[in-house]
Amino acid sequence: DFELALCEIQPKFGANNEELSAMYRNGIVHYGPAFEDISSTLRRLVEQTRTSERTPLMSVLLEGSAFTGKTAVAASTAVDSGFPFVRKISADEMIGFSEGSKCAHISKVFLDSYKSPLSLILIDDIERIIDYVQIGPRFSNTVLQTLLVLLKKDPPTEGHRLMVVATTSVPHLLEDLGGLIQAFNVSLHVPQLQSGDEIRRVLQELVPMSPADMDSIAAAITRPIGIKQLLMITEMARTDEETVSSDRFLECLHTCGY
Amino acid sequence: DFELALCEIQPKFGANNEELSAMYRNGIVHYGPAFEDISSTLRRLVEQTRTSERTPLMSVLLEGSAFTGKTAVAASTAVDSGFPFVRKISADEMIGFSEGSKCAHISKVFLDSYKSPLSLILIDDIERIIDYVQIGPRFSNTVLQTLLVLLKKDPPTEGHRLMVVATTSVPHLLEDLGGLIQAFNVSLHVPQLQSGDEIRRVLQELVPMSPADMDSIAAAITRPIGIKQLLMITEMARTDEETVSSDRFLECLHTCGY
Amino acid sequence: DFELALCEIQPKFGANNEELSAMYRNGIVHYGPAFEDISSTLRRLVEQTRTSERTPLMSVLLEGSAFTGKTAVAASTAVDSGFPFVRKISADEMIGFSEGSKCAHISKVFLDSYKSPLSLILIDDIERIIDYVQIGPRFSNTVLQTLLVLLKKDPPTEGHRLMVVATTSVPHLLEDLGGLIQAFNVSLHVPQLQSGDEIRRVLQELVPMSPADMDSIAAAITRPIGIKQLLMITEMARTDEETVSSDRFLECLHTCGY
Amino acid sequence: DFELALCEIQPKFGANNEELSAMYRNGIVHYGPAFEDISSTLRRLVEQTRTSERTPLMSVLLEGSAFTGKTAVAASTAVDSGFPFVRKISADEMIGFSEGSKCAHISKVFLDSYKSPLSLILIDDIERIIDYVQIGPRFSNTVLQTLLVLLKKDPPTEGHRLMVVATTSVPHLLEDLGGLIQAFNVSLHVPQLQSGDEIRRVLQELVPMSPADMDSIAAAITRPIGIKQLLMITEMARTDEETVSSDRFLECLHTCGY
Amino acid sequence: DFELALCEIQPKFGANNEELSAMYRNGIVHYGPAFEDISSTLRRLVEQTRTSERTPLMSVLLEGSAFTGKTAVAASTAVDSGFPFVRKISADEMIGFSEGSKCAHISKVFLDSYKSPLSLILIDDIERIIDYVQIGPRFSNTVLQTLLVLLKKDPPTEGHRLMVVATTSVPHLLEDLGGLIQAFNVSLHVPQLQSGDEIRRVLQELVPMSPADMDSIAAAITRPIGIKQLLMITEMARTDEETVSSDRFLECLHTCGY
Amino acid sequence: DFELALCEIQPKFGANNEELSAMYRNGIVHYGPAFEDISSTLRRLVEQTRTSERTPLMSVLLEGSAFTGKTAVAASTAVDSGFPFVRKISADEMIGFSEGSKCAHISKVFLDSYKSPLSLILIDDIERIIDYVQIGPRFSNTVLQTLLVLLKKDPPTEGHRLMVVATTSVPHLLEDLGGLIQAFNVSLHVPQLQSGDEIRRVLQELVPMSPADMDSIAAAITRPIGIKQLLMITEMARTDEETVSSDRFLECLHTCGY
Ligand SMILES: Nc1ncnc2c1ncn2[C@@H]1O[C@H](COP(=O)(O)OP(=O)(O)OP(=O)(O)O)[C@@H](O)[C@H]1O
Ligand SMILES: Nc1ncnc2c1ncn2[C@@H]1O[C@H](COP(=O)(O)OP(=O)(O)OP(=O)(O)O)[C@@H](O)[C@H]1O
Ligand SMILES: Nc1ncnc2c1ncn2[C@@H]1O[C@H](COP(=O)(O)OP(=O)(O)OP(=O)(O)O)[C@@H](O)[C@H]1O
Ligand SMILES: Nc1ncnc2c1ncn2[C@@H]1O[C@H](COP(=O)(O)OP(=O)(O)OP(=O)(O)O)[C@@H](O)[C@H]1O
Ligand SMILES: Nc1ncnc2c1ncn2[C@@H]1O[C@H](COP(=O)(O)OP(=O)(O)OP(=O)(O)O)[C@@H](O)[C@H]1O
Ligand SMILES: Nc1ncnc2c1ncn2[C@@H]1O[C@H](COP(=O)(O)OP(=O)(O)OP(=O)(O)O)[C@@H](O)[C@H]1O
Ligand SMILES: [Mg+2]
Ligand SMILES: [Mg+2]
Ligand SMILES: [Mg+2]
Ligand SMILES: [Mg+2]
Ligand SMILES: [Mg+2]
Ligand SMILES: [Mg+2]
Repeated sequence: DFELALCEIQPKFGANNEELSAMYRNGIVHYGPAFEDISSTLRRLVEQTRTSERTPLMSVLLEGSAFTGKTAVAASTAVDSGFPFVRKISADEMIGFSEGSKCAHISKVFLDSYKSPLSLILIDDIERIIDYVQIGPRFSNTVLQTLLVLLKKDPPTEGHRLMVVATTSVPHLLEDLGGLIQAFNVSLHVPQLQSGDEIRRVLQELVPMSPADMDSIAAAITRPIGIKQLLMITEMARTDEETVSSDRFLECLHTCGY
Repeated sequence: DFELALCEIQPKFGANNEELSAMYRNGIVHYGPAFEDISSTLRRLVEQTRTSERTPLMSVLLEGSAFTGKTAVAASTAVDSGFPFVRKISADEMIGFSEGSKCAHISKVFLDSYKSPLSLILIDDIERIIDYVQIGPRFSNTVLQTLLVLLKKDPPTEGHRLMVVATTSVPHLLEDLGGLIQAFNVSLHVPQLQSGDEIRRVLQELVPMSPADMDSIAAAITRPIGIKQLLMITEMARTDEETVSSDRFLECLHTCGY
Repeated sequence: DFELALCEIQPKFGANNEELSAMYRNGIVHYGPAFEDISSTLRRLVEQTRTSERTPLMSVLLEGSAFTGKTAVAASTAVDSGFPFVRKISADEMIGFSEGSKCAHISKVFLDSYKSPLSLILIDDIERIIDYVQIGPRFSNTVLQTLLVLLKKDPPTEGHRLMVVATTSVPHLLEDLGGLIQAFNVSLHVPQLQSGDEIRRVLQELVPMSPADMDSIAAAITRPIGIKQLLMITEMARTDEETVSSDRFLECLHTCGY
Repeated sequence: DFELALCEIQPKFGANNEELSAMYRNGIVHYGPAFEDISSTLRRLVEQTRTSERTPLMSVLLEGSAFTGKTAVAASTAVDSGFPFVRKISADEMIGFSEGSKCAHISKVFLDSYKSPLSLILIDDIERIIDYVQIGPRFSNTVLQTLLVLLKKDPPTEGHRLMVVATTSVPHLLEDLGGLIQAFNVSLHVPQLQSGDEIRRVLQELVPMSPADMDSIAAAITRPIGIKQLLMITEMARTDEETVSSDRFLECLHTCGY
Repeated sequence: DFELALCEIQPKFGANNEELSAMYRNGIVHYGPAFEDISSTLRRLVEQTRTSERTPLMSVLLEGSAFTGKTAVAASTAVDSGFPFVRKISADEMIGFSEGSKCAHISKVFLDSYKSPLSLILIDDIERIIDYVQIGPRFSNTVLQTLLVLLKKDPPTEGHRLMVVATTSVPHLLEDLGGLIQAFNVSLHVPQLQSGDEIRRVLQELVPMSPADMDSIAAAITRPIGIKQLLMITEMARTDEETVSSDRFLECLHTCGY
Repeated sequence: DFELALCEIQPKFGANNEELSAMYRNGIVHYGPAFEDISSTLRRLVEQTRTSERTPLMSVLLEGSAFTGKTAVAASTAVDSGFPFVRKISADEMIGFSEGSKCAHISKVFLDSYKSPLSLILIDDIERIIDYVQIGPRFSNTVLQTLLVLLKKDPPTEGHRLMVVATTSVPHLLEDLGGLIQAFNVSLHVPQLQSGDEIRRVLQELVPMSPADMDSIAAAITRPIGIKQLLMITEMARTDEETVSSDRFLECLHTCGY
């Protein structure tokens, strides 16, 4: 039945660059040292995968709270790697799949990757892949076990190399499913925007705004905020006009439960 | 089997304006500032969805205790939006469905919406959709995960935009299924009627009554009450006569366990 | 499969007056004010359903401890309503049904009721319908959700009206499945017999007995007792003779674990 | 599938007197007042069922610790009733049955009983029928619910009467499944043998033994003991000789973990 | 489906003496009074089964910690009984069986035994038969219930007699599944070797060794040890030489985590 | 269905020496006394299995934290044994298998092994085989029970001998599934590298490096570290250059969350 499942599924992989680029429509703003850290580490790990003969498998987990830009960072890493085989595994392609079909789909992507000398697999929102929900907690153990096995398995072909980049925003995963976190070679924290400086840099590049407004907005945001949430609120604030007044912005901040 | 399910189901969407209007048979009374707040916020969010090119997906949750008018507010928002594609997802169309068929049905509505440049999906009583019950707690994780994924997925077609308006009256959802609440961009609280003023305004528009009776009723209602419950009790009170005496009203209030 | 289930089942509804009358074989004794309260409230709610155009759906729950006469009160209300469509949903017609078939059966009764301008559905022992057992607690969530949805759904045809009268003797339902209790518009408590006066009135009408014996029996029953239990013990006591001595009665009271 | 199950099963009811008598091979010793109590109460309840026109359904539960003679008492009651329809429901006829088949089998016995004007159904070890085990606790809720419904349902034919006699030795049932215990009209406690007198009477009738030995045995048994256990130990003690020495008896008492 | 299961399974019973003897390859050493106790009790129970007409069913549980020789004792009892029908029920013959097939297999053995006037069934490692694991705890309730029923059922043929000898090394069973332990007529504790004397007697018969070494080994074993573990460690110690030095023995004791 | 499963599966055993050698690509460094201990114990146990006629079954569990080289040690033991039948059971060959198919696959390997006079089965990551996850905890009880039975079953053919070597890195298994750990005859702890000396020896053999750098690296590693993790970090550190500076090494140590 699994064999069958493997055959029947014709996943529309198509994770070509276009589809991946769509995952960071608003570009990647180099908003400061915190971002450069992640960015350069990821570049180095890509390099290691490409060149080291003793690293057949490199797995990286990007974890951080919601709206911090994890998906964008993972997707841009994938695009920039230039690896010949790049695939995405995400939950929306598996809606309505049985546990068995999910495992089949995931295995297929990994098996395919083994054929290429250099591959990168992006697993977005790993908590959704395993149907995780905090209470219980509940999740698909079958899918979890499949991931745990695949995340430890070297490509069987001598010399072939695979990089896995996954994202998650469920801190509880860390406690509940410790084994899943440990299955990754490297785990990087994607932070929220912390300083007014970082916020200003993001607004600067993405929203036309007077420096005064920008300053009062940055001043108003006293707690860390995710970059995606900042963009969303900005958009909500400028419904009518082209620019965004800080009053209007704070109102929207409030509406969004910040 | 899921594919099959997708085909076999011929949901009678028909969420045309008539069906939606039936969800607020007693009209929408502008009972005061608390209502104007929600009302204007919703109008602005509809506007943002219509105009902002950077908001492919806008999701709003209307939460509040039972009988507060959540469904009416959501339905009138949908009708007033004037969007070309408006659909309703509600539990009574899925009685007896398997989890798989429910997911298929829900996905179908979303997939259809992606084809229209401007869409609005109303999800009424989201706790019923996921078969939630407080003890355990139990719910359909399959349906929950499907919602979690769809609530985060932008319409794949460039420029197409989707607004989702959902309602719930289970405060425990907030604790138990935090992830579901967080999946919405905006979460608005629909309040009970708080002041005698609000109660009077509602009675005024809906029930012929002497000002004295109205005052003594408003005086008797010392705790907040849902607008739907107020209407129901009024109806119970005026079985025989056309008008409603305050004595009779208080009796019915008591019978209904207020 | 559900559709199929809907077709295959040929429920012997037949809840005609005879079958309903059999549910109160021993008649309805007007034993005092406590009974008149329930009785008149129910009559008024029947009237509201019949006449109010703004009450498409009226749902009433009769709750009380075991043996208090809940079923008899519900059934006599149904018979006395004189509504053109009267149906009973009870667990003994669904023994061995799968959860799906139960939901199909229940839905069918409701769907049929929608066709009649005035309908009444009696749901006896709602805890049995949902397969409730206190430990766990366990119950059929599928059937529960079906009830929760149907209990909130107005008849779709304009002007058609439906009254639902349900009974339960599980106080824990109140705590465990709060949502189910809240789903009813009105919840009435059916009490045990409290005073010697009430007990005497019941015995008077149902058992030939000397006033002295009746007094000593009434005196012996110091804690509240359900009307059905009182009748059962009386029957046990008069096996041999036509009348019932108080000694014999007390012996039987003891045997029954009172 | 249930309908099917109803047809396929050809239960070898055959609970004729022979089979029932085999359940008390060692006869029924009238060992004292404690036994007469149960015995006469059961006789009276049989009489009530036979004669009272207002008792269409009489259900009795015999509960007591293991080895107290519950099955023997129930079976002799059934034989002595002389009712035209007497059936036994016991777990060993349903080994390997699915939950559905069990329900079908049980329902069949009840449905058949409704056809006879006077019926008695013996349900032996009700905890085994519902697959009860204390931890969890676990049990078959489907079978439990079936029993709960059938134990409350009057024979539909006017004037037909049914007596149900069940046994159990799981005191926890009382706490865990309170509803099951309450479903019975009468619940009788079957005691262990308490006094030396009772023990002597049992030994007297069943084992040839010197009065001295009998006295020292009775003296040695300081805690209550089930009648079945007493018989078993006696049998173990007289392997070689025809009579039983008290030394040998005490040794066996010890071996059996008394 | 169960009926089917009964037919399809062709269990290779073949629990002939050879197969049973293989369960105590290293013979049975009469190592002292503790062993004689168990041994003589078992002989007496076999005798009772053979001769007593009032003991249609005799069930014995051998419980003790791991490696104490439970299986050997049970198997030698079976062989020595000389009963015409001797069968073994053990988990390794049911690997991969569904719960239903297991029940079918077990029932089959019991049903077959009923045909013989004198039968003995050996149930080895009863915890494995019911798939028991301590956490949860989890086990197959279906198989457990089947055993509970069969362990209480007399052979239906008048005069036929059945002895059941089972083993277990899970003390927790006692707490978790009390009912299973109580289902046995007799429960015997199989002890570990306690004294140097017992250890010497076992070594003497099984391993060529100098008295001095034997003494120092016996002295070194300060805590009780299972007979099977003693044999295993001895075997490990004499890999190279024919005899076993005490130094080498102690080293192996340590390796085995004693 | 199990029988079927047994036939359909054509496991690509092929655990020939090449495949097994691939499990220790970086060789086996004799890094000090801690390693020699395990190494010589394993050699002795292999010898016992080969020569002792009283050890038909020898089972060894290698447990230790992640990355300590358990798999490498197990695989090299298997290769060095020179046994005619050597097989590997690992989770990645059973992805997507049902519980039944897993049991069938595992049984098949054991059944095949029984045919060879001398066999060795390597079970890698036994926690993955049973789908273990710490919360709950959850695991496949069916597979666990199969292992528990097979780990206790001697090869049925007289004189045939089987050695089982398993690995695990879940310390919780010890608490949760005590029975599984106890099922092994011997349990060996595979330690992390503890001393600077051990670390130096590993680096020496595997990475060209200046003695000074080696010293500062060894000095920097203040907590124990797994040998596999040491190799991984070294590899990460030498992406660009052929040698590894201690600065770069420490940076990588940090990235990997040491
Ligand atoms: N430096 C940056 N890092 C990440 N995202 C950036 C950066 N600069 C701009 N962006 C934009 O911010 C958005 C980040 O959204 P993204 O979906 O990656 O967040 P996320 O953390 O995955 O959110 P979620 O928790 O909902 O999955 C994208 O639109 C991206 O183009
Ligand atoms: N300002 C208002 N807001 C909401 N409802 C109003 C308002 N004015 C009048 N109504 C009427 O009040 C009723 C509200 O009922 P509605 O079903 O929306 O409540 P609800 O909160 O969804 O209840 P439930 O918790 O049972 O789902 C409708 O009949 C609607 O026509
Ligand atoms: N005023 C009364 N109210 C209710 N029942 C009455 C009254 N007078 C007489 N009776 C008789 O009392 C009996 C009540 O039994 P009924 O089955 O309704 O009790 P119940 O509360 O539904 O019991 P259960 O908890 O077992 O379901 C009926 O036989 C009915 O005829
Ligand atoms: N007065 C008596 N009451 C009950 N049993 C008696 C009496 N006198 C003799 N016996 C004999 O005692 C035995 C009682 O065994 P029985 O199987 O009824 O016990 P039980 O309580 O059902 O045991 P278990 O708890 O194992 O089901 C029977 O063999 C019966 O013939
Ligand atoms: N007196 C004895 N009692 C039991 N076993 C003995 C005795 N003398 C020698 N032996 C030998 O000791 C071994 C006992 O092993 P056995 O398999 O019976 O132990 P066990 O308690 O069943 O172990 P486990 O807990 O693993 O099931 C057998 O090889 C048996 O031949
Ligand atoms: N003495 C040694 N012992 C073990 N492994 C060694 C030794 N010397 C070198 N190695 C190398 O170290 C690596 C150990 O990796 P291995 O996969 O065995 O670790 P592991 O403990 O099984 O890890 P995991 O916990 O991820 O399963 C192998 O590449 C092996 O060649
Ligand atoms: Mg994301
Ligand atoms: Mg609503
Ligand atoms: Mg009732
Ligand atoms: Mg019994
Ligand atoms: Mg054993
Ligand atoms: Mg490993």
